[in-house]
Parts: sequence; C-alpha cells; structure tokens
Amino acid sequence: MNSSKESIKHKLHTIIQEADTPLGKAFDIILLIAILLSVIIVMLDSVASISQKFSQIFFMLEWTFTIFFTIEYFLRIYITKNPFKNYIFSFYGIIDFLAVLPTYLSIFVTGSHFMMVIRIFRLIRVFRILKLGRYVGASQVLRDSLINSRHKITVFLEIVLTIVVLMGSIMYIVEGPENGFSSIPRGIYWAIVTLTTVGYGDIAPTTVIGQFLASIIMIMGYAIIAVPTGIVSSEMIKSENKKKVHLNTQVCENCHCDKHEDGARFCKICGTALYGPDEEKNL
Amino acid sequence: MNSSKESIKHKLHTIIQEADTPLGKAFDIILLIAILLSVIIVMLDSVASISQKFSQIFFMLEWTFTIFFTIEYFLRIYITKNPFKNYIFSFYGIIDFLAVLPTYLSIFVTGSHFMMVIRIFRLIRVFRILKLGRYVGASQVLRDSLINSRHKITVFLEIVLTIVVLMGSIMYIVEGPENGFSSIPRGIYWAIVTLTTVGYGDIAPTTVIGQFLASIIMIMGYAIIAVPTGIVSSEMIKSENKKKVHLNTQVCENCHCDKHEDGARFCKICGTALYGPDEEKNL
Amino acid sequence: MNSSKESIKHKLHTIIQEADTPLGKAFDIILLIAILLSVIIVMLDSVASISQKFSQIFFMLEWTFTIFFTIEYFLRIYITKNPFKNYIFSFYGIIDFLAVLPTYLSIFVTGSHFMMVIRIFRLIRVFRILKLGRYVGASQVLRDSLINSRHKITVFLEIVLTIVVLMGSIMYIVEGPENGFSSIPRGIYWAIVTLTTVGYGDIAPTTVIGQFLASIIMIMGYAIIAVPTGIVSSEMIKSENKKKVHLNTQVCENCHCDKHEDGARFCKICGTALYGPDEEKNL
Amino acid sequence: MNSSKESIKHKLHTIIQEADTPLGKAFDIILLIAILLSVIIVMLDSVASISQKFSQIFFMLEWTFTIFFTIEYFLRIYITKNPFKNYIFSFYGIIDFLAVLPTYLSIFVTGSHFMMVIRIFRLIRVFRILKLGRYVGASQVLRDSLINSRHKITVFLEIVLTIVVLMGSIMYIVEGPENGFSSIPRGIYWAIVTLTTVGYGDIAPTTVIGQFLASIIMIMGYAIIAVPTGIVSSEMIKSENKKKVHLNTQVCENCHCDKHEDGARFCKICGTALYGPDEEKNL
Repeated sequence: MNSSKESIKHKLHTIIQEADTPLGKAFDIILLIAILLSVIIVMLDSVASISQKFSQIFFMLEWTFTIFFTIEYFLRIYITKNPFKNYIFSFYGIIDFLAVLPTYLSIFVTGSHFMMVIRIFRLIRVFRILKLGRYVGASQVLRDSLINSRHKITVFLEIVLTIVVLMGSIMYIVEGPENGFSSIPRGIYWAIVTLTTVGYGDIAPTTVIGQFLASIIMIMGYAIIAVPTGIVSSEMIKSENKKKVHLNTQVCENCHCDKHEDGARFCKICGTALYGPDEEKNL
Repeated sequence: MNSSKESIKHKLHTIIQEADTPLGKAFDIILLIAILLSVIIVMLDSVASISQKFSQIFFMLEWTFTIFFTIEYFLRIYITKNPFKNYIFSFYGIIDFLAVLPTYLSIFVTGSHFMMVIRIFRLIRVFRILKLGRYVGASQVLRDSLINSRHKITVFLEIVLTIVVLMGSIMYIVEGPENGFSSIPRGIYWAIVTLTTVGYGDIAPTTVIGQFLASIIMIMGYAIIAVPTGIVSSEMIKSENKKKVHLNTQVCENCHCDKHEDGARFCKICGTALYGPDEEKNL
Repeated sequence: MNSSKESIKHKLHTIIQEADTPLGKAFDIILLIAILLSVIIVMLDSVASISQKFSQIFFMLEWTFTIFFTIEYFLRIYITKNPFKNYIFSFYGIIDFLAVLPTYLSIFVTGSHFMMVIRIFRLIRVFRILKLGRYVGASQVLRDSLINSRHKITVFLEIVLTIVVLMGSIMYIVEGPENGFSSIPRGIYWAIVTLTTVGYGDIAPTTVIGQFLASIIMIMGYAIIAVPTGIVSSEMIKSENKKKVHLNTQVCENCHCDKHEDGARFCKICGTALYGPDEEKNL
Repeated sequence: MNSSKESIKHKLHTIIQEADTPLGKAFDIILLIAILLSVIIVMLDSVASISQKFSQIFFMLEWTFTIFFTIEYFLRIYITKNPFKNYIFSFYGIIDFLAVLPTYLSIFVTGSHFMMVIRIFRLIRVFRILKLGRYVGASQVLRDSLINSRHKITVFLEIVLTIVVLMGSIMYIVEGPENGFSSIPRGIYWAIVTLTTVGYGDIAPTTVIGQFLASIIMIMGYAIIAVPTGIVSSEMIKSENKKKVHLNTQVCENCHCDKHEDGARFCKICGTALYGPDEEKNL
C-alpha cells in the first residue's frame, strides 16, 4: 500500500514537475492557459464599463481558477520532500501562496484595488513553466551576461544617478518653481525623464539657459546609452565564444584533458599527439 | 505551335520572374514605379483637401494601375507550373489578389476607408522585386540573425511583458483613476509608453510615489534596451564569422590543416601545395 | 619674377591648404573661429529681442566675415591648378560660394529669413578644416562601417518604411480623423514618431484598439532599434579586425606576399618558409 | 614623541585613506552614509511642504554633517604630505572644501537656493570611496573604452551638432514663429529634442513639410544612435581581448609559438614542454 502511495506520488511528480511526458506537457499547457486567463480577467475587471456588465461571470471564473490553483498548491506540497524547506518558503512557493490568498481574503474583507493587483502577480508563475523547456539555454546566456557585467552596470548606474541628481539640482535653480521645477526631487525626476529619452513633456525647460542645459543632457543621454549596450554586447560575445570552445571535441588519449583549441595537434597538458577531426575520418 | 506557346511562356517567365535580362529589368522597374505611385495616390486620396480637387484624376489612375496589376496577376498564373499550389495560395499570390480586389469591389460597394487601406498593402509587393538583386545577401544576414536569436528574444519579450503588466498594475493603485490611470490595461499602456522611452505624455504620473516608480521604470527601460541590442549584435558577428569560415574549404593533403585564407596556394602549417577552387574546376 | 610669383603661390598653398606649418595651423584656427562666430551671429540675429538691440554690430561683423571669406575664396581659386575643375564646381567650392553670396545679395534684395539660413550652411566648412588632422582615421572607420553596411541598412530602412506606412494606414482607420489621425500621411507621421520612440504626444491614440496597436508598434520599435546597432557594431568590429591583420608584418622572401595570418610558418602563395617574429629576434 | 606623532598620522592614514582594515572600512561606510543622508536632506529641504515642517531638524542635521566633514577635511590635510600640492588644490580637495563652505557662508548670507545646490555636489565625494574597491577594474574598462574611442566620438558629435544646426535652421524657415519655432536657437533645441528621440512635444511641427522633415530627422536619429553604440561595443570587445592576450606570455622554446591558452603545459604546435608561470617562480 505504501508502495502504491509512493507510485502515485511519483506519477504526480512526473505530471506536475516535468514536461517530458504527454501528461506533464498537457498539465503545463492547462496551467499556462489558466494563469494567463485569470490575469486577463483581473485586467478586464479593472475596466469600469466591462466590470459592471460581466461582474458575475468574472466572480465565478475567479473562484474556479482559485480552487484549481489551490489544489495545485497542495499537490505541490504533497509531492515535495521537505516541503517547508524546498517549496513553501521558496520564491515560487510564496508566489503560489499569494496567487490564491486574495480571493479567500475577499470573503472577509471587501475587495479593494490593492487585493486585485496582488492577484496579477500570478503572472510570475508563467516563468516556472517556461523554465522547463528549450528557453533555458537562452535565458542562461542572458542571465550570465547580466551577472558578468554587474560591476560595470553598477558603476554605470552610479554615474547616471550622479548626473541626474546634479543636473536636476542645477535645473531647479535655473528654471525655478514657476516653470514646474518646484523642488530638487522634481528636478531629478525631470532629469531622468530627459536622460532616458522618455520625454513626457509634463515638465519642459522654458528659459534659454534651461533649454541649453537640457540639450546637453539629451546629447549626453544619447551617447551614454551606448555604454550599457556595449557592456552587454561584449559580455554576450564573450559568453558565446566560451560556448564555442566546446565545439572542439578532441580529448587527449593520455590525460583525458579536453577543451583544446582549434588546430591543436598536441595535448596542452601532457604533450601527447592528438587526433585531429580530419585524421579521425581517415581511420 | 505548342513549342511556340512554350517559347512565349518561357519568354514571359524571363521578363516577369527574372531581372537579369534588359527586358526583365525594365519590367521590374516599371512595376516598382507603378506600385509606389499607386500607394502614393491612396495616401493623397486620404487627405480631404487634396482628394476633393483631384478625385477624378485619382479615380482614373487607380483604374489604370488596377488593370495593369490584373494583367500581371493573370500572366503570373499563366507562366507558373501548378499555379494553385505555387502561386495563387502562396503569400505573394494572396497579396497580389488583395492588391486588385478593392478597386473591383468599389463598383458594387460604396468605397469605404477600409477598402482604401487594403490597397496600401500593395506596398508589400515591393519586397518581391527587391528579392531579386544584391540585397538578398544583406536580408539573409538580417533574417538569420533574427532566427538564431529567436529564443533569446522570446525570453526577453516575456520579461518585458511581465514588467509592464506588473508595473502598470502597481501604478493603477498608486496613481488611480483621478490621474489618468483609469484601469489596469491603461496602466499597462502607460508602462509600455514609458519603458520603450516613447513618452507621449498623454498619461504622466503626478504623485510623488508614482514619479519615483516611473523613474525606476525609465532607468530599467534604458538599461533593458541593451539586451536585444547585445543579442542581435552578437548574432550578427557570429553569422559574419560563420560566413567567413565557409568561404574557404581547402584542406591540406599532407597535414589536414583547414581554414586557410582566401587565395592561399600552400598550406600555412606544412608548406604543401593546396588545390585552389579554380584548379579544381580545371580538373 | 615668374618664379617669385610661383613661390608666393606655393607659400599661400602651404598656409591655406596644409596644417603642418605654424602659419598654416594659425590660418586654420582663425578660419575655424571666424566660421563659428559668423554662424553664432546668424543664430542670435534670428532671436527678435537680441536682433533689435545689436542689429548694427551684427551688420558690421557679418560684412567683416563676408569680406574675409571672399578674400579666402579668391585665394583658393588662385592657388588651385585648374580651379574650375578642382575647386569652383567641387562640393566645398559651392559651399564656399554659398557662404558669401547671401550677404552680397542682401544689398539688392531685402534680407529674408531664407537668405539668413543659407549663411548657416557655412558650418559645413568646418569639416574641411577638421579633415586635416588626427580625426581622419576615426572618420574613416565610421565611413567604412556605414559604406560596408549600406545594403543591410537599405533593407532595414525598407522594412521600417513599410511598417510605418502599413501601421499608419491601419491607425487612420482605427482612430479616425476625430482623434487627430486626419489622413494616411498624418497616420504615417504618427507611426514614425512612435516607432522611433520620439513620442511628441501631439497625436496619441485614444481608443482601446488604437492603444493596443500603438503598444505593439512601440515594442517593435524597441526591438527593431537593435538591428541597425547590431549592423554597425559588427561592421566596426570587422573593420577593427581587418586593421589588426596589418599587425602581422611577415613578408615572404620569395614572392614578397604579405598579410599572412598570425602563426603562419609557410608563405600561403609560394610555400617558402617564413621567419616568425620570434625567430627574427634570435638572428 | 615625534615617532608617536608619526604613528598617529600613520594610523589616521590607514583609517581615512585605505579600506583594507576593519577601522578603515567602518570609516568609509560611515562617511558614505553621512554623504548620502546629507544629500537627501538637501533634496527634501527643497520641497516646500516638507521644509516647513522639519526645518529645525534639517538645520541641526546639516550642521552635524558639516562639522563632521570639516573635521574630516582637516584630518585629510594633516595626513597628506605636501597637502597644498597633493590635496587642497586637487579635484577632490576642492570638492571637499565646497562641501562644507555653503553651510558656513549661510551664517553671513541669507541662505539662497544657489548655496543649497552647491551642497548637493557632495555626492561626487561618493566616487572617492567607491574607488577603493572591486569596482576599479570595471570603471577602468569603461574609462579605457571611452578614451580609446574619443576621436570617433568627437567626429560623431560634430556630425550630430552640424545636423541639428542645419535642420533647426531649416525648420525655423519652414514652420516659422507662428508654430513655436520663434528663432534658430529654438529650432536647434527642437532638433536636439527630436534627434535624441526625447520628444517633449512642447514644440512640434504642424505644417506638412515640417512633419515630413521631422520624419527624416527622427529616422536619422534612430539610425545614428547605432554609431556611438557600435563605437563603444567594438572598443569594449577590443579591450576585453587585449586583457585576455596579456594574461598568457608563454612562448615555446622549440617552435616559438606563443598565445597559448591559460594552463597549457605543452606547446600546441610541436608538443615541447612549456614553462608555466608557477614554474618560473620556482626557478
């Protein structure tokens, strides 16, 4: 009996956690659709005109999804070894819990906007499903590039923040409250809007000196954008090159050292002659 | 007689489908001008003040182009083997059909704006003409880069979409309907306008917390733009390098060293004579 | 006497055309300052409040600069061999002529805004002065990168133009004249403003479908910007690498072929053994 | 006694100038917090509503920080050899002096906005603290990339400035003062706002020709942004590669082949044993 319980646990594990079997794949697709649909409903529910018409359907669907997600939540606890350590207090465990909590709370508390928006964080759960798939490699490259360039990006962000604080303060003096620069934080907000080339136009310089300084910030912002781009580009090319080294499949017969350079004819570690890719074909 | 029919078919094929002969080139240029002119007429026809003055000239020109495109359409069917499979239901076949349909329909239906705009899709036909030419290589590199980086771009778009959904929802709570954030979809629209640094200014944060969050989104958008740029740059450099390697397939008979430079006549490692691409042809 | 005339001509040539002698350098700096000052005067003259106060000083300075540029123009004709072919009808010859013409014409014609702006094209003359200097190499790399990537950039621009024409037309139907999309050209103008992430906000979508389509264009524009960046980056890296090849200074003793790859030990053209950089040191 | 004075001087030096000892690290962290807090207070003090409520607390805190910075300033003079040459008139010396000056001046002069903003330049002092740390390498790469590409960036900025001056002048004629283009400098301001894709919308073209020219500037700005990005990317990749090459200086005794991979112990071309960096130390 215990073994059959184990077998059910194992089967559930295959369905919920893996995507290689047909059932596991089907579960993932159903979950994906449920998450996206429930998020779309939260969105539509916030539009006053739609909300009034379909409030009952939305209410029903929301409870259907919540019950489905609740069952899934408890199943995940059931199939995980050491659920407290490995699931409940992990990142996705908390997200899963927050995904169902607001609906249950809405029984006791009158549904506020705040509750509604927490439900939208369900969207993050999509990334767990996509983690199982061919996008792992792609997101790995992106993450590695960002991690490797974190020091450069930190320095870059510091310089950007210093520029916006200084320029925002100067513009506060130059333009003054009468032109919308009512305080230094507001000046900094304007400097960020300008440097990042967003340019809402809610605050715009009107004095000649203000427009001159703004022009300098804009051209600086235009040139500065090249820096993070250069950082990420060079990191990506580097990580691509690192991956490329694996294309050389030569392995030394003597010391089993691999990752030889293309064109190497002797092992770089022990000096034994290596078989080149062409020689292998001739054998 | 059949052979003369075949010969006409062959000649038409050379004119319509190929651009190497003077007649084929002339046909392509005339077609290009006709497409661009007819698109410009549709554009001008939508401007009320111009439309009133020249409506008769536009009507006449539109019918001239339509008849020309119709003849071209039937000629293309005539010269294609298995026209149903290879042309009529192909991408360009449908575009060609849609290019002439609205004008004929306008006899029966009073011309609406919608009909007019379908005619502008003729512009896509320009790409067929440009496909025959020296731009094939260039567009090949662009397409390959995009195809190779599709996984990374998918991951990138998912992250961007998640950010705009979450930030749009949070801003909906923070700013509220009184500041223009009347629903979550509208908040998401604002987040996209901000993250992509477009910044219309039709909706802009007015509260202090809203402006603070907006600043974070802007700086994130400023940094995030580096990611697709890095992806495409590294893909392009990779595909450039790949192209370079494939150009030379010489392998040394003696030491099996490959990846020789273009124009190499002796192995760079052992000095053995190499067979050049020209010599191979002479054998 | 003729030889002394030649000697004067030669000396003038050294001063005006070259920047290696102290006098030539001084002339270049004076000319640079004169051009920049005269351009600044044109700018200030267009500001109504400043123009009223200083009109007489501006008038005097403008004539001083014009006479200086006129003397320079005739000296350039004098020192050039075949001045008609080599200078007067060359790009810079025409710019130099247009730089002085408006001031003389203003005697006969009452000075219009149009005349004033032609004078600002003097600014282009700055590039001739900067051409003589250390910026030649840098601008060469920029120009080569753009020339080498012209096919790719053409394809890219075609795609961008097609997108803005199609999206502008669709938005003309979706939003309509009541929301500012009064014609297809205006819709295209809006699509360009949006795709390039400028986002003035003078025309902004107000319907739900319009805002949804606008969001797609924005995210497309955000991703598309990666393409020209990738093109130029990969071209620059390529042209940097090409320059690097020159670092290998091996020349074959037998056939005088150079530009060997790093690590080459035999001439790739005739198979003669090459001296490596290290071997040369040992000799 | 003199030696004990020297010992105090040495200890103070270790605490203030270095970050390797626990005390030095603690001092840096306290200084960092003091700088950031004092900058935040200046910011908040500029917000009218907050300033009224907390003016007394802000006044007290400002004096506390000023006295702390003053003590630090004199200690730095005390521990520096040749303080006039090495500290007082150096970049950071002047910044440190300006960081405390405005507060003392405010005793005599009634505090103006201008005084307040000078205090915000304290923020620059943060970079000195961060200079001691692991960000040196990262900022070195960024600085090297910018220094190496300064010629290209200068050429690029010249071209950008010429474009905005010419386009701004043309738009001044085309649109005229009635559409907000009241002078050439204002036209140039608009051209910068447009080319850098900021797009406030405070000035926007309204005539058809103006919108057509604006479209060209936008697409140009969209393509031009690729140039600085390409410059910085290629410089970064180059400086990354340079770093990589210098890491391994092994040269084979037998065939003089160099550029071996890190960790290589035998020549990859002829199989001769290489001296590793560690073995050299053991000799």
